[in-house]
Amino acid sequence: MPNLAITYPDIITASQRINGHAVVTPLIESALLNQRLGGRILFKAENLQRTGSFKFRGAFNKVCKLYDQGLFNAEFNGVVAYSSGNHAQGVAAAAKHFGIAATIIMPADAPQIKISNTKALGATVVLYDRNNEDRAAIGKQLADDHKLTLIPPYDDADIIAGQGTLGLEAAHQLEALNLRPDLAISPIGGGGLISGIATALKNHFPHIKIWGAEPQNYDDACRSLVADQRLANEPAPASICDAIVTPIVGELTFPIMQHYLAGAKAVRQESVLQAMMCCMQDLKLIVEPGGCVGLAAILASQLEVRDKITLVILSGGNADPAMLTRALRAS
Amino acid sequence: MPNLAITYPDIITASQRINGHAVVTPLIESALLNQRLGGRILFKAENLQRTGSFKFRGAFNKVCKLYDQGLFNAEFNGVVAYSSGNHAQGVAAAAKHFGIAATIIMPADAPQIKISNTKALGATVVLYDRNNEDRAAIGKQLADDHKLTLIPPYDDADIIAGQGTLGLEAAHQLEALNLRPDLAISPIGGGGLISGIATALKNHFPHIKIWGAEPQNYDDACRSLVADQRLANEPAPASICDAIVTPIVGELTFPIMQHYLAGAKAVRQESVLQAMMCCMQDLKLIVEPGGCVGLAAILASQLEVRDKITLVILSGGNADPAMLTRALRAS
Repeated sequence: MPNLAITYPDIITASQRINGHAVVTPLIESALLNQRLGGRILFKAENLQRTGSFKFRGAFNKVCKLYDQGLFNAEFNGVVAYSSGNHAQGVAAAAKHFGIAATIIMPADAPQIKISNTKALGATVVLYDRNNEDRAAIGKQLADDHKLTLIPPYDDADIIAGQGTLGLEAAHQLEALNLRPDLAISPIGGGGLISGIATALKNHFPHIKIWGAEPQNYDDACRSLVADQRLANEPAPASICDAIVTPIVGELTFPIMQHYLAGAKAVRQESVLQAMMCCMQDLKLIVEPGGCVGLAAILASQLEVRDKITLVILSGGNADPAMLTRALRAS
Repeated sequence: MPNLAITYPDIITASQRINGHAVVTPLIESALLNQRLGGRILFKAENLQRTGSFKFRGAFNKVCKLYDQGLFNAEFNGVVAYSSGNHAQGVAAAAKHFGIAATIIMPADAPQIKISNTKALGATVVLYDRNNEDRAAIGKQLADDHKLTLIPPYDDADIIAGQGTLGLEAAHQLEALNLRPDLAISPIGGGGLISGIATALKNHFPHIKIWGAEPQNYDDACRSLVADQRLANEPAPASICDAIVTPIVGELTFPIMQHYLAGAKAVRQESVLQAMMCCMQDLKLIVEPGGCVGLAAILASQLEVRDKITLVILSGGNADPAMLTRALRAS
């Protein structure tokens, strides 16, 4: 076994930290959707998590660990993070819980709901131009100038272990239903979520096949897994899946993905809009574009679920009214 | 104590019947919404119930009792029900579970999602003209002609007890959180839901104040409670709240409502659309117009929730895309 950034016990430790603070999100299924797809699909509705996405788990685990280490002393100036909006809210909510200051760097064109909710959680929001500025560089500058502690979005062992609690929780829920899933599919951005949940799921269900899903034109994980090396995304037209558009999968997350994943699927924008509609009509859930790419792959027949038990991660629900209207019109 | 159609033990019996068949729907809250409203609001997300509304509970309890009584013999020809669409799906799903035939009488202008899902559940759907035909008369005729067993929408002890399991479940969930609610608010149509949950909630929380909510122009419960006698709705323009537009509260449900309720609030259509939007943006839930009238009353300041713990019943989520688009545009 290669030397990976986290192992199963790290997720157990993270789950002890977040227990009672994060929502135990429900596993949801639709008899009619199962009937249409000819298999049993269980959706982990992480759009119902605090702050509307799984990002609260990793952020809380990270910030809680800093607290446990006694770092929130007189010299502590707060945390800083960069994010298209979900990690932003996760970090803001965790910082608020511990009474520390949070500065969040967000693209000026992030969904309005993400910007306003991050502010409502008490964070200082710094907007940047996604096309001409480098968020990591701005983050480093702010951290250096104001002695802030950076909370990375994905390439960090505590963040990965925190996101992994979603997989642990789903495993316990499936076991309580006496179900052993054949397949799981989850969105991939930088890979923090999928590498965390893969670590948990493979421990509970060694034979499960775990797939990632990402937007067309931003299929760095797909290509990297095939090439067995990290390949960056080429410049491409903007994607509606803002939550999972990242330049390249992480240095820490990629070896975990290589070790556990069956592969990744790149989904078309039309399939994503169709998946959003399916969530609204069949599951009664609002899921943002980047949150339902796994379901998009299934609806587009990119993953065969017939006669199988499949776990689908719906990772977030922070979509603006205009995007929801677009999905409702598309079908 | 007056002689009421059901008491608390009937709900316990119903919960034993539906246990393992109905979804244990989550209690959901939003930190940001709580912050805005200055109180703690817990939403019982019954839109996530099988068939997309609470109606499965009562229908399953009723049909299961017929089964327990050994009535599904060679002479049994199936069940019939009339419904604007949620009771329809509940009865269809329960009938499918027990392998019996279901005939459902629905208005031709019911939401498309309700008609198509009822058909997909294997029921025979008979459409009627809501403005010129009497659904109860059609139901009786079909029952007589084909020897079908009528499953009434609300004015029936087994239906009321089944819907009451929603209140029982919410009470257990609140107790697990160590919360004692000050207030509860639930939609009222014929009164089956609210009389069931009031029976359960008042048993667990004797001091809780329980309010009903109904659409403007269809405020028969409001007026009946004030007048201390059942008053029918006058003819009025169509309401978007199709699920809870009923001619008059039930003979069995009204005495229960009189015994337990603090009163009822009639909400404006604009408030209902605003509540649907709030569900989508803050809770990440699709709730149909008739399902979120309780939240509508709160958003319109018709119920004071500041510094209180309030249980809000979101009773269903079967809304067509056009209605969702309308709610997204309204704000």
